[in-house]
Amino acid sequence: MNKMSMKWLLLLQLLQLTCYFSSGSCGKVLVWPVEFSHWMNMKTILDELVMRGHEVTVLQSSASTLIDPNKPLAMKFETFPVSLTKDDFQTLAKILIETWMLAVKDFFWIHLSTIQSLFDEFSDIGMKICSEVVSNKKLMTKLQESRFDVVLADAVGPCGELLAEILKVPLVYSLYFSPGYLVEKRSARLSFPPSYVPVMLSELSDHMTFMERVKNMIYVLYFDYWFQLYNEKKWNQFYSEVVGRPTTMAESMGKAEMWLIRNYWDFSFPRPRLPNVEFVGGLHCKPAKPLPKEMEEFVQSSGEHGIVVFSLGSMVSNISEERANVIASALAQIPQKVLWRYDGKKPDTLGPNTRLFKWIPQNDLLGHPKTKAFITHGGSNGIYEAIYHGIPMVGLPLFADQPHNIVHMTAKGAAIRLDLETMSTEDLLNALKEVINNPFYKENIMKLSAIQHDQPMKPLDRAIFWIEFVMRHKGAKHLRPASHNLTWFQYHSLDVIGFLLACVTTVVFVITKCCLFCCRKFASIGKKGKRD
Amino acid sequence: MNKMSMKWLLLLQLLQLTCYFSSGSCGKVLVWPVEFSHWMNMKTILDELVMRGHEVTVLQSSASTLIDPNKPLAMKFETFPVSLTKDDFQTLAKILIETWMLAVKDFFWIHLSTIQSLFDEFSDIGMKICSEVVSNKKLMTKLQESRFDVVLADAVGPCGELLAEILKVPLVYSLYFSPGYLVEKRSARLSFPPSYVPVMLSELSDHMTFMERVKNMIYVLYFDYWFQLYNEKKWNQFYSEVVGRPTTMAESMGKAEMWLIRNYWDFSFPRPRLPNVEFVGGLHCKPAKPLPKEMEEFVQSSGEHGIVVFSLGSMVSNISEERANVIASALAQIPQKVLWRYDGKKPDTLGPNTRLFKWIPQNDLLGHPKTKAFITHGGSNGIYEAIYHGIPMVGLPLFADQPHNIVHMTAKGAAIRLDLETMSTEDLLNALKEVINNPFYKENIMKLSAIQHDQPMKPLDRAIFWIEFVMRHKGAKHLRPASHNLTWFQYHSLDVIGFLLACVTTVVFVITKCCLFCCRKFASIGKKGKRD
Repeated sequence: MNKMSMKWLLLLQLLQLTCYFSSGSCGKVLVWPVEFSHWMNMKTILDELVMRGHEVTVLQSSASTLIDPNKPLAMKFETFPVSLTKDDFQTLAKILIETWMLAVKDFFWIHLSTIQSLFDEFSDIGMKICSEVVSNKKLMTKLQESRFDVVLADAVGPCGELLAEILKVPLVYSLYFSPGYLVEKRSARLSFPPSYVPVMLSELSDHMTFMERVKNMIYVLYFDYWFQLYNEKKWNQFYSEVVGRPTTMAESMGKAEMWLIRNYWDFSFPRPRLPNVEFVGGLHCKPAKPLPKEMEEFVQSSGEHGIVVFSLGSMVSNISEERANVIASALAQIPQKVLWRYDGKKPDTLGPNTRLFKWIPQNDLLGHPKTKAFITHGGSNGIYEAIYHGIPMVGLPLFADQPHNIVHMTAKGAAIRLDLETMSTEDLLNALKEVINNPFYKENIMKLSAIQHDQPMKPLDRAIFWIEFVMRHKGAKHLRPASHNLTWFQYHSLDVIGFLLACVTTVVFVITKCCLFCCRKFASIGKKGKRD
Repeated sequence: MNKMSMKWLLLLQLLQLTCYFSSGSCGKVLVWPVEFSHWMNMKTILDELVMRGHEVTVLQSSASTLIDPNKPLAMKFETFPVSLTKDDFQTLAKILIETWMLAVKDFFWIHLSTIQSLFDEFSDIGMKICSEVVSNKKLMTKLQESRFDVVLADAVGPCGELLAEILKVPLVYSLYFSPGYLVEKRSARLSFPPSYVPVMLSELSDHMTFMERVKNMIYVLYFDYWFQLYNEKKWNQFYSEVVGRPTTMAESMGKAEMWLIRNYWDFSFPRPRLPNVEFVGGLHCKPAKPLPKEMEEFVQSSGEHGIVVFSLGSMVSNISEERANVIASALAQIPQKVLWRYDGKKPDTLGPNTRLFKWIPQNDLLGHPKTKAFITHGGSNGIYEAIYHGIPMVGLPLFADQPHNIVHMTAKGAAIRLDLETMSTEDLLNALKEVINNPFYKENIMKLSAIQHDQPMKPLDRAIFWIEFVMRHKGAKHLRPASHNLTWFQYHSLDVIGFLLACVTTVVFVITKCCLFCCRKFASIGKKGKRD
């Protein structure tokens, strides 16, 4: 164990002791995370929980790549064996990204059908891993004996809710989005009017033309009645077998006490929400730390023109040589210095103002006073850092939620969107000049930044408050809408509408019959009278 | 000006100076209040705004009874002349209360039709007062010149939104409820599923049987398509004339930047909400202050049995002699001492353990450690004080929202409901014994109390935050759903559904026609072939 680790261990133990001897509200948190950028966000919450003295245990498969080598002891990692290897997992992730990136270019329905296949494939892998966890008797006994106070899970990675149910521990979710808001609708039981709430992945804004509303409605119908986030039949059967009674995945997920949505109204368009849904977008944002010496010198050398930060995120560090040259050529023509996170071959057209890095301290760069613009793939974490520091963007969305995220920023006048695959050098050059020199973009991103900073309580503090609340009160049942006790047709009042229609029809029928009967009676009396 | 007033004036000026020289976020608040318990709640917000150094001006008609003689200078009162006198107003209020109290006993539809007539009558008076304000050129010029930063209005008293529109100042609403959630639906643009959100005044809980859901649906239909909160046609015409373009009252109200709802999830059942709606119920609650000496002595004389607090609120201080005797007789039989706010003739059956008071410091009594139960009419302010201090209740609801409020408390196991007009001495005695001696009620009210106390931020602080936010940012447009730009049929996607149905019908029609045409063609070829 090195010195750094020892320091962390001592700090952790000290914090936990402080906690137990003072507020008494410290608890044991079991975490079911999801990899990549999801983990980066979740880790902010976990670090804060650890800082507040809670005992955090992260369940991690042997194929996972989560452990941060810098702070290995800030939280516990409980690693369970799975038949998948780290290499298998990384290959699968690579295929997922590449397939989705290609699919984005397709016609929307082909794109969605590709996503469906990807989700099906990952759903099967997820079920395999989940099954290997819950059938691991040694692990499950250990978890049972640990008596956790809360399970914190990412809602896009199934199994967390099953673990919470087996361990009889309240559940808190972290979630950025689910395609078509399927999880939010089916599990959190929230309806969104399709007239002003654009479906996630639709790339529409909240101000829609008639034809856009038609498009949105078609997406809603598609997602609600066709798309399967997971192969639900299989999962329902699996969950029923494990808990030993008929159940569904949506029912298990619906038991969550609190949903921490990684969004807020500077980024998202206003839409209805429920009391057990808290919007904590940008919780990972923090003031910039000083840059490494060499990087700071490069940044300072930009003079009054400042710098441009360019990253395509943690999942894509490389692009084709041809595209790299198109980009490098545009970057070479701006007066700013550019810091580009890029892992490929150095482009021939690279200008002296552009420096390539395998990794950049993105938040510290975006928070640097010299930063003028951010070229981004549109991941939600990066966009939130740009909002937090007030940096206008050029968006080059690649896959998943990225195009939809960039639509939000363009609709709010804080970004220009380009297509990485088809844009020319001139397109990128013009877009960069526009976001840097036209005050429209800077003013708008500064407005969003003001909203992000001016909240009743910081998003991270709100997230921690609700996790701690659930631990203190063994749940948050007072926030849970009664809709969870209704079937889908009861929820939509279809039985009531049917009953009322039947009543009205019966009444109309009886009245009509009575009238007809009376008419006939009078008519026959009239005829009889005439005959008499 | 007496010494007390001077002290307040100096404190106020000092606070405002501090504000201008420090945070710079102080502003000028114009208030359009509503009388009675609405004012008591609003005043808590205004006192806090004054304490934080804001300049608060309350618009008050010459018929109003708002001024608090204890602190006349904590905020400014701008009194405008109206043709109505204080006596007229008080007589009207008395008629309103008496008529509504009688109507409560009627069959629901007769009850609602009486409420409709009352609302119509008050709507006309409201319009008269509103018209006298906006046509008062001297007053309007003074208000224009005052350059307010925000208008704070009670949403059940029309005109605040019109003043905000004329003065071009952002608007913040305070609201507890509107019958059938009409204001929330029409102006805040929020839909509630009738399957689990009981209509306000329906006296249903969120867990409904099939027949209760049918009942709730009928109420929804009644309120949505029949009930008129105000005589809307008249108001729309009046507002259009004043602003000089066609508009509606709902449109004006819908411009509110923020809705501060005087409710929270300890009291209310969870239901959907929008980002510009903040639930700040119980903001007026505060720890108990010491009681007057004589009262404290009486309370202490109760020994281990403790006391019962009894009040029918600020609007009703008297009941019939017969009812008073029934109540007094029950109170005489309990071992607790009773403090009864009562202004009528001393009942003959009054026991030595019961003392009558014309006014009681309700919050201080409910917060007293000796208090065991609260007999209440079920006003929302009183219920919140009982929740805050964890005191179980016996509810004797009289009119307005009171029966609905008590239903919430009985559903949450924190109260027993009785009918003041029909209950016997034994009924009240049993109910009191039950809430005092059965730990079920105490446990449940303590759970609600824990929820009220354990919030991320105190409700009053949240209310003030959003008023100050609106002042700082000249609004809160980022919280405003895009639904406000849609007509009702666009909001419900009726145009889109119609269009899609038309498309499907056309496609089916064309396909059918083509098939028929082909069939005929083949048939004729077949026949021709046979003939050949």
